[in-house]
Amino acid sequence: MKKVEIGKKILNKNEICAIENKSLLTEKKKLCLNMISSPGSGKTTILVRTITELKDKIKIGVIEGDLQTDIDAERIRATEAPAFQINTEGACHLSAVQVSRGLKNLPIDDLDLIIIENVGNLVCPSAFELGEAGKVVVLSVAEGDDKPAKYPGIFAKSKVLLINKIDYLSSGGQVDFDIERVKTDACRLNKTIEIFPISAKTGQGMADWYDWLIKNVEQCRTQI
Amino acid sequence: MKKVEIGKKILNKNEICAIENKSLLTEKKKLCLNMISSPGSGKTTILVRTITELKDKIKIGVIEGDLQTDIDAERIRATEAPAFQINTEGACHLSAVQVSRGLKNLPIDDLDLIIIENVGNLVCPSAFELGEAGKVVVLSVAEGDDKPAKYPGIFAKSKVLLINKIDYLSSGGQVDFDIERVKTDACRLNKTIEIFPISAKTGQGMADWYDWLIKNVEQCRTQI
Repeated sequence: MKKVEIGKKILNKNEICAIENKSLLTEKKKLCLNMISSPGSGKTTILVRTITELKDKIKIGVIEGDLQTDIDAERIRATEAPAFQINTEGACHLSAVQVSRGLKNLPIDDLDLIIIENVGNLVCPSAFELGEAGKVVVLSVAEGDDKPAKYPGIFAKSKVLLINKIDYLSSGGQVDFDIERVKTDACRLNKTIEIFPISAKTGQGMADWYDWLIKNVEQCRTQI
Repeated sequence: MKKVEIGKKILNKNEICAIENKSLLTEKKKLCLNMISSPGSGKTTILVRTITELKDKIKIGVIEGDLQTDIDAERIRATEAPAFQINTEGACHLSAVQVSRGLKNLPIDDLDLIIIENVGNLVCPSAFELGEAGKVVVLSVAEGDDKPAKYPGIFAKSKVLLINKIDYLSSGGQVDFDIERVKTDACRLNKTIEIFPISAKTGQGMADWYDWLIKNVEQCRTQI
Protein backbone atom coordinates (compact mmCIF):
# COMPACT_ATOMS: atom_id res chain seq x y z
CA MET A 1 0.00 0.00 0.00
CA LYS A 2 1.31 3.41 -0.92
CA LYS A 3 1.47 6.03 1.78
CA VAL A 4 -0.08 9.32 0.75
CA GLU A 5 0.85 12.45 2.63
CA ILE A 6 -1.86 15.03 2.91
CA GLY A 7 -0.21 18.41 3.14
CA LYS A 8 -3.40 20.36 3.44
CA LYS A 9 -5.44 20.55 6.62
CA ILE A 10 -8.88 19.01 6.22
CA LEU A 11 -11.48 21.52 7.35
CA ASN A 12 -14.24 20.53 9.70
CA LYS A 13 -17.89 21.50 9.31
CA ASN A 14 -17.57 24.57 11.54
CA GLU A 15 -14.53 25.88 9.65
CA ILE A 16 -16.24 25.40 6.26
CA CYS A 17 -19.34 27.22 7.45
CA ALA A 18 -17.21 30.02 8.97
CA ILE A 19 -15.57 30.55 5.56
CA GLU A 20 -19.02 30.69 3.92
CA ASN A 21 -20.20 33.27 6.49
CA LYS A 22 -17.06 35.33 5.92
CA SER A 23 -17.52 35.23 2.12
CA LEU A 24 -21.10 36.44 2.44
CA LEU A 25 -20.10 39.28 4.77
CA THR A 26 -17.13 40.29 2.57
CA GLU A 27 -19.30 40.27 -0.56
CA LYS A 28 -21.88 42.47 1.16
CA LYS A 29 -19.15 44.66 2.72
CA LYS A 30 -20.55 44.32 6.22
CA LEU A 31 -18.34 44.40 9.29
CA CYS A 32 -18.93 41.47 11.67
CA LEU A 33 -17.45 41.27 15.18
CA ASN A 34 -17.52 38.33 17.61
CA MET A 35 -17.82 39.60 21.21
CA ILE A 36 -16.51 37.23 23.87
CA SER A 37 -16.26 37.45 27.66
CA SER A 38 -17.10 35.80 30.97
CA PRO A 39 -20.76 35.91 32.05
CA GLY A 40 -21.66 39.30 33.47
CA SER A 41 -18.82 41.41 32.07
CA GLY A 42 -21.42 43.74 30.55
CA LYS A 43 -21.55 42.73 26.86
CA THR A 44 -25.27 43.45 26.45
CA THR A 45 -25.04 46.78 28.29
CA ILE A 46 -22.14 47.79 26.00
CA LEU A 47 -24.22 46.85 22.96
CA VAL A 48 -27.33 48.69 24.13
CA ARG A 49 -25.39 51.91 24.73
CA THR A 50 -23.37 51.57 21.51
CA ILE A 51 -26.47 50.96 19.36
CA THR A 52 -28.33 53.86 20.96
CA GLU A 53 -25.52 56.40 20.75
CA LEU A 54 -24.46 55.45 17.20
CA LYS A 55 -27.95 55.08 15.73
CA ASP A 56 -27.58 58.12 13.46
CA LYS A 57 -24.17 56.96 12.20
CA ILE A 58 -24.19 53.17 11.79
CA LYS A 59 -26.92 50.55 11.75
CA ILE A 60 -26.17 47.61 14.01
CA GLY A 61 -27.76 44.17 14.17
CA VAL A 62 -27.04 41.56 16.83
CA ILE A 63 -26.86 37.77 16.96
CA GLU A 64 -27.39 36.79 20.60
CA GLY A 65 -25.97 33.53 21.95
CA ASP A 66 -27.20 32.22 25.29
CA LEU A 67 -27.63 28.81 26.88
CA GLN A 68 -31.23 29.67 27.74
CA THR A 69 -33.67 32.63 27.72
CA ASP A 70 -34.04 35.56 25.34
CA ILE A 71 -33.38 38.18 28.03
CA ASP A 72 -30.47 39.68 26.06
CA ALA A 73 -32.24 39.78 22.67
CA GLU A 74 -35.17 41.56 24.32
CA ARG A 75 -32.79 44.18 25.75
CA ILE A 76 -31.33 44.74 22.26
CA ARG A 77 -34.78 44.92 20.59
CA ALA A 78 -35.79 47.62 23.08
CA THR A 79 -33.29 49.86 21.24
CA GLU A 80 -35.19 49.08 17.98
CA ALA A 81 -32.14 47.29 16.55
CA PRO A 82 -32.79 43.84 15.05
CA ALA A 83 -31.63 40.91 17.19
CA PHE A 84 -31.71 37.18 16.51
CA GLN A 85 -31.58 34.94 19.59
CA ILE A 86 -29.85 31.56 19.52
CA ASN A 87 -30.30 29.27 22.53
CA THR A 88 -27.46 26.76 22.61
CA GLU A 89 -29.34 24.54 25.12
CA GLY A 90 -26.26 23.93 27.23
CA ALA A 91 -23.52 24.23 24.59
CA CYS A 92 -20.70 26.49 25.73
CA HIS A 93 -20.11 28.48 22.53
CA LEU A 94 -21.82 29.54 19.29
CA SER A 95 -21.08 27.59 16.09
CA ALA A 96 -20.68 28.98 12.58
CA VAL A 97 -23.82 27.05 11.55
CA GLN A 98 -25.86 28.89 14.19
CA VAL A 99 -24.39 32.23 13.08
CA SER A 100 -25.25 31.40 9.47
CA ARG A 101 -28.87 31.00 10.60
CA GLY A 102 -28.62 34.34 12.39
CA LEU A 103 -27.28 36.08 9.26
CA LYS A 104 -30.19 34.70 7.20
CA ASN A 105 -32.68 36.02 9.75
CA LEU A 106 -31.25 39.53 10.10
CA PRO A 107 -31.90 42.24 7.47
CA ILE A 108 -28.17 42.43 6.71
CA ASP A 109 -28.57 44.54 3.57
CA ASP A 110 -29.89 47.33 5.80
CA LEU A 111 -27.07 47.00 8.36
CA ASP A 112 -23.50 48.31 8.57
CA LEU A 113 -22.32 46.18 11.43
CA ILE A 114 -23.30 42.77 12.80
CA ILE A 115 -22.18 41.98 16.33
CA ILE A 116 -22.29 38.40 17.57
CA GLU A 117 -22.69 38.31 21.34
CA ASN A 118 -21.24 34.91 22.15
CA VAL A 119 -22.18 32.69 25.13
CA GLY A 120 -20.61 34.03 28.35
CA ASN A 121 -17.42 31.99 28.54
CA LEU A 122 -13.81 33.16 28.38
CA VAL A 123 -12.47 29.80 27.20
CA CYS A 124 -14.42 27.78 24.62
CA PRO A 125 -15.74 30.47 22.22
CA SER A 126 -12.18 31.56 21.41
CA ALA A 127 -11.58 28.22 19.66
CA PHE A 128 -14.45 28.49 17.14
CA GLU A 129 -14.28 30.80 14.13
CA LEU A 130 -17.72 32.08 13.13
CA GLY A 131 -16.80 34.05 10.01
CA GLU A 132 -16.23 37.31 11.84
CA ALA A 133 -13.72 39.97 10.78
CA GLY A 134 -12.43 40.17 14.35
CA LYS A 135 -12.97 39.27 17.98
CA VAL A 136 -13.70 41.77 20.75
CA VAL A 137 -12.89 40.51 24.25
CA VAL A 138 -14.58 42.22 27.19
CA LEU A 139 -13.07 42.13 30.68
CA SER A 140 -14.85 43.75 33.61
CA VAL A 141 -12.62 45.26 36.28
CA ALA A 142 -14.63 43.26 38.84
CA GLU A 143 -13.10 40.08 37.38
CA GLY A 144 -9.55 40.99 38.39
CA ASP A 145 -6.39 42.08 36.61
CA ASP A 146 -4.87 38.58 36.36
CA LYS A 147 -7.20 37.40 33.60
CA PRO A 148 -4.98 37.96 30.50
CA ALA A 149 -2.27 35.87 32.23
CA LYS A 150 -4.72 33.16 33.29
CA TYR A 151 -6.84 32.99 30.12
CA PRO A 152 -4.33 33.94 27.40
CA GLY A 153 -6.06 32.36 24.39
CA ILE A 154 -8.80 34.90 23.85
CA PHE A 155 -6.55 37.91 24.55
CA ALA A 156 -4.01 36.62 22.00
CA LYS A 157 -6.70 36.32 19.30
CA SER A 158 -8.74 39.51 19.75
CA LYS A 159 -8.58 42.74 17.75
CA VAL A 160 -10.01 44.78 20.61
CA LEU A 161 -10.03 44.55 24.41
CA LEU A 162 -12.77 46.51 26.17
CA ILE A 163 -11.97 46.93 29.87
CA ASN A 164 -15.48 47.56 31.20
CA LYS A 165 -16.94 48.84 34.49
CA ILE A 166 -14.09 51.30 35.09
CA ASP A 167 -16.60 53.32 37.17
CA TYR A 168 -15.95 50.67 39.89
CA LEU A 169 -12.36 51.95 40.14
CA SER A 170 -13.51 55.24 41.63
CA SER A 171 -15.90 53.63 44.13
CA GLY A 172 -13.84 54.23 47.27
CA GLY A 173 -11.10 51.69 46.63
CA GLN A 174 -13.30 48.59 46.84
CA VAL A 175 -11.93 47.11 43.62
CA ASP A 176 -8.26 46.15 43.39
CA PHE A 177 -7.48 46.30 39.69
CA ASP A 178 -4.23 47.40 38.09
CA ILE A 179 -5.23 48.56 34.61
CA GLU A 180 -1.58 48.90 33.56
CA ARG A 181 -0.97 45.24 34.43
CA VAL A 182 -3.84 44.22 32.14
CA LYS A 183 -2.54 46.41 29.31
CA THR A 184 1.01 45.06 29.68
CA ASP A 185 -0.10 41.42 29.85
CA ALA A 186 -2.53 41.78 26.92
CA CYS A 187 0.09 43.53 24.75
CA ARG A 188 2.63 40.84 25.58
CA LEU A 189 0.20 38.26 24.17
CA ASN A 190 -0.93 40.41 21.26
CA LYS A 191 1.11 43.34 19.97
CA THR A 192 -1.68 44.79 17.82
CA ILE A 193 -4.60 44.59 20.25
CA GLU A 194 -6.47 47.89 20.69
CA ILE A 195 -7.46 48.54 24.30
CA PHE A 196 -10.32 50.80 25.39
CA PRO A 197 -11.08 51.26 29.11
CA ILE A 198 -14.82 52.04 29.29
CA SER A 199 -17.87 52.19 31.47
CA ALA A 200 -20.97 51.20 29.53
CA LYS A 201 -22.97 52.41 32.51
CA THR A 202 -21.62 55.98 32.78
CA GLY A 203 -20.42 56.34 29.17
CA GLN A 204 -16.81 57.04 30.19
CA GLY A 205 -14.34 56.09 27.44
CA MET A 206 -17.05 54.99 24.97
CA ALA A 207 -16.17 57.68 22.39
CA ASP A 208 -12.85 56.00 21.51
CA TRP A 209 -14.62 52.65 21.01
CA TYR A 210 -17.20 54.37 18.78
CA ASP A 211 -14.42 55.98 16.71
CA TRP A 212 -12.80 52.58 16.24
CA LEU A 213 -16.14 51.05 15.14
CA ILE A 214 -16.93 53.87 12.69
CA LYS A 215 -13.43 53.70 11.19
CA ASN A 216 -13.62 49.93 10.74
CA VAL A 217 -17.17 49.97 9.33
CA GLU A 218 -15.96 52.58 6.81
CA GLN A 219 -12.89 50.51 5.86
CA CYS A 220 -15.11 47.47 5.35
CA ARG A 221 -17.56 49.46 3.21
CA THR A 222 -14.86 50.88 0.93
CA GLN A 223 -12.77 47.73 0.49
CA ILE A 224 -12.37 46.52 -3.10
CA MET B 1 -28.42 -11.46 14.08
CA LYS B 2 -30.02 -11.16 17.50
CA LYS B 3 -30.60 -7.68 18.82
CA VAL B 4 -29.33 -7.18 22.34
CA GLU B 5 -30.67 -4.34 24.40
CA ILE B 6 -28.22 -2.79 26.80
CA GLY B 7 -30.18 -1.46 29.72
CA LYS B 8 -27.19 -0.10 31.57
CA LYS B 9 -25.42 3.09 30.65
CA ILE B 10 -21.83 2.47 29.62
CA LEU B 11 -19.57 4.72 31.67
CA ASN B 12 -16.88 6.79 30.03
CA LYS B 13 -13.34 7.18 31.32
CA ASN B 14 -14.14 10.36 33.26
CA GLU B 15 -17.14 8.80 34.99
CA ILE B 16 -15.17 5.68 35.98
CA CYS B 17 -12.36 7.79 37.41
CA ALA B 18 -14.86 10.03 39.25
CA ILE B 19 -16.31 6.93 40.95
CA GLU B 20 -12.78 5.84 41.95
CA ASN B 21 -12.06 9.30 43.40
CA LYS B 22 -15.35 9.23 45.30
CA SER B 23 -14.63 5.75 46.71
CA LEU B 24 -11.21 6.87 47.95
CA LEU B 25 -12.67 9.99 49.59
CA THR B 26 -15.56 8.05 51.15
CA GLU B 27 -13.20 5.40 52.51
CA LYS B 28 -10.98 8.06 54.04
CA LYS B 29 -14.02 10.06 55.26
CA LYS B 30 -12.82 13.30 53.68
CA LEU B 31 -15.24 15.91 52.40
CA CYS B 32 -14.51 17.04 48.85
CA LEU B 33 -16.20 20.04 47.19
CA ASN B 34 -15.99 21.17 43.55
CA MET B 35 -16.06 24.98 43.36
CA ILE B 36 -17.31 26.39 40.05
CA SER B 37 -17.83 29.94 38.77
CA SER B 38 -17.06 32.43 36.04
CA PRO B 39 -13.53 33.85 35.97
CA GLY B 40 -13.06 36.53 38.59
CA SER B 41 -16.00 35.76 40.88
CA GLY B 42 -13.57 35.51 43.79
CA LYS B 43 -13.07 31.74 44.30
CA THR B 44 -9.43 32.03 45.37
CA THR B 45 -10.13 34.96 47.70
CA ILE B 46 -12.94 32.93 49.33
CA LEU B 47 -10.58 29.98 49.77
CA VAL B 48 -7.76 32.08 51.22
CA ARG B 49 -10.06 33.67 53.83
CA THR B 50 -11.80 30.36 54.63
CA ILE B 51 -8.52 28.48 55.11
CA THR B 52 -7.08 31.25 57.28
CA GLU B 53 -10.13 31.72 59.49
CA LEU B 54 -10.83 27.99 59.93
CA LYS B 55 -7.23 26.85 60.41
CA ASP B 56 -7.74 25.88 64.05
CA LYS B 57 -10.93 23.94 63.25
CA ILE B 58 -10.50 22.13 59.91
CA LYS B 59 -7.51 21.38 57.72
CA ILE B 60 -8.12 22.25 54.08
CA GLY B 61 -6.18 21.26 50.96
CA VAL B 62 -6.82 22.64 47.48
CA ILE B 63 -6.62 21.30 43.94
CA GLU B 64 -6.25 24.34 41.67
CA GLY B 65 -7.41 24.19 38.05
CA ASP B 66 -6.27 26.88 35.62
CA LEU B 67 -5.61 27.09 31.91
CA GLN B 68 -2.19 28.58 32.61
CA THR B 69 -0.07 29.93 35.51
CA ASP B 70 0.18 28.90 39.16
CA ILE B 71 -0.95 32.30 40.48
CA ASP B 72 -3.84 30.75 42.42
CA ALA B 73 -1.89 27.86 43.95
CA GLU B 74 0.75 30.34 45.14
CA ARG B 75 -1.99 32.41 46.84
CA ILE B 76 -3.26 29.27 48.61
CA ARG B 77 0.26 28.16 49.65
CA ALA B 78 0.82 31.58 51.25
CA THR B 79 -1.77 30.48 53.86
CA GLU B 80 0.41 27.39 54.52
CA ALA B 81 -2.33 25.07 53.22
CA PRO B 82 -1.24 22.45 50.69
CA ALA B 83 -2.24 23.18 47.07
CA PHE B 84 -1.73 21.15 43.90
CA GLN B 85 -1.84 23.14 40.65
CA ILE B 86 -3.19 21.61 37.45
CA ASN B 87 -2.72 23.55 34.21
CA THR B 88 -5.27 22.38 31.67
CA GLU B 89 -3.36 24.03 28.78
CA GLY B 90 -6.49 25.42 27.19
CA ALA B 91 -9.07 22.83 28.30
CA CYS B 92 -12.17 24.46 29.75
CA HIS B 93 -12.75 22.20 32.77
CA LEU B 94 -10.94 19.81 35.11
CA SER B 95 -11.26 16.06 34.51
CA ALA B 96 -11.57 13.32 37.13
CA VAL B 97 -8.18 11.95 35.98
CA GLN B 98 -6.54 15.29 36.77
CA VAL B 99 -8.25 15.39 40.17
CA SER B 100 -7.06 11.83 40.88
CA ARG B 101 -3.50 13.09 40.32
CA GLY B 102 -4.24 15.98 42.68
CA LEU B 103 -5.53 13.62 45.40
CA LYS B 104 -2.35 11.52 45.14
CA ASN B 105 -0.19 14.62 45.53
CA LEU B 106 -1.99 16.13 48.53
CA PRO B 107 -1.44 14.81 52.08
CA ILE B 108 -5.11 13.80 52.29
CA ASP B 109 -4.71 11.75 55.48
CA ASP B 110 -3.83 15.00 57.28
CA LEU B 111 -6.78 16.93 55.78
CA ASP B 112 -10.49 17.24 56.66
CA LEU B 113 -11.63 18.95 53.49
CA ILE B 114 -10.38 19.01 49.90
CA ILE B 115 -11.66 21.84 47.73
CA ILE B 116 -11.27 21.63 43.97
CA GLU B 117 -11.11 25.12 42.45
CA ASN B 118 -12.25 24.41 38.91
CA VAL B 119 -11.31 26.40 35.78
CA GLY B 120 -13.21 29.71 35.66
CA ASN B 121 -16.20 28.79 33.49
CA LEU B 122 -19.89 28.71 34.37
CA VAL B 123 -20.79 26.21 31.65
CA CYS B 124 -18.47 23.27 30.93
CA PRO B 125 -17.27 22.23 34.43
CA SER B 126 -20.87 21.53 35.49
CA ALA B 127 -20.99 18.59 33.06
CA PHE B 128 -18.01 16.69 34.48
CA GLU B 129 -18.20 14.79 37.76
CA LEU B 130 -14.86 14.69 39.57
CA GLY B 131 -15.77 12.48 42.51
CA GLU B 132 -16.78 15.34 44.78
CA ALA B 133 -19.48 15.13 47.46
CA GLY B 134 -21.02 18.35 46.16
CA LYS B 135 -20.62 21.39 43.96
CA VAL B 136 -20.35 24.97 45.24
CA VAL B 137 -21.26 27.62 42.66
CA VAL B 138 -19.97 31.15 43.23
CA LEU B 139 -21.70 34.16 41.68
CA SER B 140 -20.30 37.66 42.16
CA VAL B 141 -22.85 40.45 42.35
CA ALA B 142 -20.82 42.25 39.66
CA GLU B 143 -21.92 39.54 37.20
CA GLY B 144 -25.60 40.46 37.39
CA ASP B 145 -28.73 38.92 38.87
CA ASP B 146 -29.85 37.19 35.64
CA LYS B 147 -27.23 34.44 35.80
CA PRO B 148 -29.28 31.58 37.36
CA ALA B 149 -31.87 32.10 34.59
CA LYS B 150 -29.25 32.29 31.84
CA TYR B 151 -26.90 29.52 33.08
CA PRO B 152 -29.31 27.13 34.83
CA GLY B 153 -27.22 23.95 34.66
CA ILE B 154 -24.73 24.69 37.40
CA PHE B 155 -27.32 26.26 39.73
CA ALA B 156 -29.52 23.15 39.36
CA LYS B 157 -26.64 20.84 40.32
CA SER B 158 -24.97 22.68 43.22
CA LYS B 159 -25.32 22.05 46.95
CA VAL B 160 -24.31 25.62 47.81
CA LEU B 161 -24.53 29.01 46.13
CA LEU B 162 -22.13 31.66 47.44
CA ILE B 163 -23.22 35.14 46.33
CA ASN B 164 -19.89 36.96 46.63
CA LYS B 165 -18.79 40.61 46.65
CA ILE B 166 -21.91 41.81 48.47
CA ASP B 167 -19.77 44.75 49.69
CA TYR B 168 -20.32 46.18 46.16
CA LEU B 169 -24.04 46.53 46.98
CA SER B 170 -23.30 49.26 49.51
CA SER B 171 -20.92 51.17 47.25
CA GLY B 172 -23.20 54.07 46.45
CA GLY B 173 -25.64 52.25 44.18
CA GLN B 174 -23.17 51.49 41.39
CA VAL B 175 -24.20 47.84 41.17
CA ASP B 176 -27.72 46.89 40.11
CA PHE B 177 -28.26 43.47 41.63
CA ASP B 178 -31.49 42.08 43.05
CA ILE B 179 -30.39 39.43 45.52
CA GLU B 180 -33.99 38.22 45.99
CA ARG B 181 -34.29 37.56 42.25
CA VAL B 182 -31.17 35.37 42.41
CA LYS B 183 -32.49 33.46 45.43
CA THR B 184 -35.90 32.92 43.80
CA ASP B 185 -34.44 31.79 40.46
CA ALA B 186 -31.87 29.50 42.09
CA CYS B 187 -34.49 27.89 44.38
CA ARG B 188 -36.81 27.37 41.40
CA LEU B 189 -34.02 25.34 39.74
CA ASN B 190 -32.92 23.61 42.92
CA LYS B 191 -35.15 23.34 45.99
CA THR B 192 -32.39 22.18 48.34
CA ILE B 193 -29.64 24.65 47.41
CA GLU B 194 -28.15 26.50 50.41
CA ILE B 195 -27.48 30.16 49.67
CA PHE B 196 -24.94 32.32 51.51
CA PRO B 197 -24.49 35.99 50.54
CA ILE B 198 -20.87 36.83 51.45
CA SER B 199 -18.02 39.21 50.96
CA ALA B 200 -14.71 37.36 51.00
CA LYS B 201 -13.06 40.76 51.10
CA THR B 202 -14.76 42.23 54.17
CA GLY B 203 -15.75 38.93 55.84
CA GLN B 204 -19.47 39.76 55.83
CA GLY B 205 -21.63 36.62 55.87
CA MET B 206 -18.67 34.22 55.99
CA ALA B 207 -19.64 32.78 59.41
CA ASP B 208 -22.70 30.98 57.98
CA TRP B 209 -20.58 29.43 55.21
CA TYR B 210 -18.04 28.29 57.83
CA ASP B 211 -20.82 26.71 59.92
CA TRP B 212 -22.04 24.82 56.86
CA LEU B 213 -18.50 23.58 56.13
CA ILE B 214 -17.84 22.50 59.72
CA LYS B 215 -21.19 20.67 59.91
CA ASN B 216 -20.59 18.86 56.61
CA VAL B 217 -16.98 17.94 57.46
CA GLU B 218 -18.26 16.48 60.74
CA GLN B 219 -21.04 14.50 59.01
CA CYS B 220 -18.50 13.10 56.56
CA ARG B 221 -16.11 12.16 59.39
CA THR B 222 -18.77 10.33 61.42
CA GLN B 223 -20.50 8.51 58.56
CA ILE B 224 -20.55 4.72 58.81
